[in-house]
Amino acid sequence: MPRLTPARRAARREQVLQAAIRAVIRSGFQGMTMADVIAESGLSAGAVYGYFASKNDLLVAVAETHLHGLEELVASRLSPDPPISPADLLELLIEQVRIMADQPEGDLTVVIVQIWGQAVLGGEVCDIMAPRVGLLYDTICDAARCWREHGMIAADADPEAVARVFTSLLPGYMLQRLVLGEIAPADYAAGLRAFDPGR
Amino acid sequence: MPRLTPARRAARREQVLQAAIRAVIRSGFQGMTMADVIAESGLSAGAVYGYFASKNDLLVAVAETHLHGLEELVASRLSPDPPISPADLLELLIEQVRIMADQPEGDLTVVIVQIWGQAVLGGEVCDIMAPRVGLLYDTICDAARCWREHGMIAADADPEAVARVFTSLLPGYMLQRLVLGEIAPADYAAGLRAFDPGR
Repeated sequence: MPRLTPARRAARREQVLQAAIRAVIRSGFQGMTMADVIAESGLSAGAVYGYFASKNDLLVAVAETHLHGLEELVASRLSPDPPISPADLLELLIEQVRIMADQPEGDLTVVIVQIWGQAVLGGEVCDIMAPRVGLLYDTICDAARCWREHGMIAADADPEAVARVFTSLLPGYMLQRLVLGEIAPADYAAGLRAFDPGR
Repeated sequence: MPRLTPARRAARREQVLQAAIRAVIRSGFQGMTMADVIAESGLSAGAVYGYFASKNDLLVAVAETHLHGLEELVASRLSPDPPISPADLLELLIEQVRIMADQPEGDLTVVIVQIWGQAVLGGEVCDIMAPRVGLLYDTICDAARCWREHGMIAADADPEAVARVFTSLLPGYMLQRLVLGEIAPADYAAGLRAFDPGR
């Protein structure tokens, strides 16, 4: 096989990921096969397997990129003094989720829900995903500590409980958007703000 | 076939549902077949098909019972004056989710996540589930109107946005419990209460 430049390799890898996204949206996690991805990608089997050993690897790679993006977004907004408020952070995160939903290769949030379905059955996808989700959750715990310090949530709040509630708002949004229909990120964030009647 | 009494029919139907729950937890929504359910139930194919025409019907029946239970729980707690607070209602709902997770035939929340995975692919499961989820959501909208009237959320709150945020806390809890581990219903509810620093 001819040697590829790093840029060409990255582009090919992306081509395989996009094929996987289209295939999983069409057939579901369990319904999709590596053969579907190979056909969809237009590359050879050898080329596809050179990037990803299995469909688990493929779908975890899709999820990981986006989890990492959300995590960086949270971390980047905590350092200013005062930090971003819970509702404003929620709005930013949901805008990111909207971008994931509007990808040219299809709605990535559909892929994410497929990965949940597989992860909760246990096994490899769960083993790989749980620590990754844990990293995003830990960053949201840092945010909760920051909000408590700045009086943006109750003074006696347990940061882990606050992080659990806040974290729920991301999958909850994805699911409701797909099943009940769209709600604008700003409106959803206002829904969280409403739980503070004294604001 | 001998005629069954209504009680015997109901018990048989329940036997099929429990077999389906075990089969879907083992194999996932797409991995499970009607043949698995028939084998698992110990009943004849004719008997099983007499209750449920397809695995979609089976899994929708599982989801429906529990959605309806959550909906009734919300509706029953709104009439007293003042109504139950958001955090207290959340605690009750999460206790219900915990009961679903502790069924003898297996963790029903795993089944629910499988149904989400199928629903977001569109098709029959989505068509059947969307209006059912909509009923629970509408009841939570009623709750939000009630909370606004009683000054339990911001006076200018949009009940639909509040309901979207509140509704997210149910799937978000299920998913985090399965992936990140347990959190007590009371602690999770306290996490929501913390968003009102003036309480």
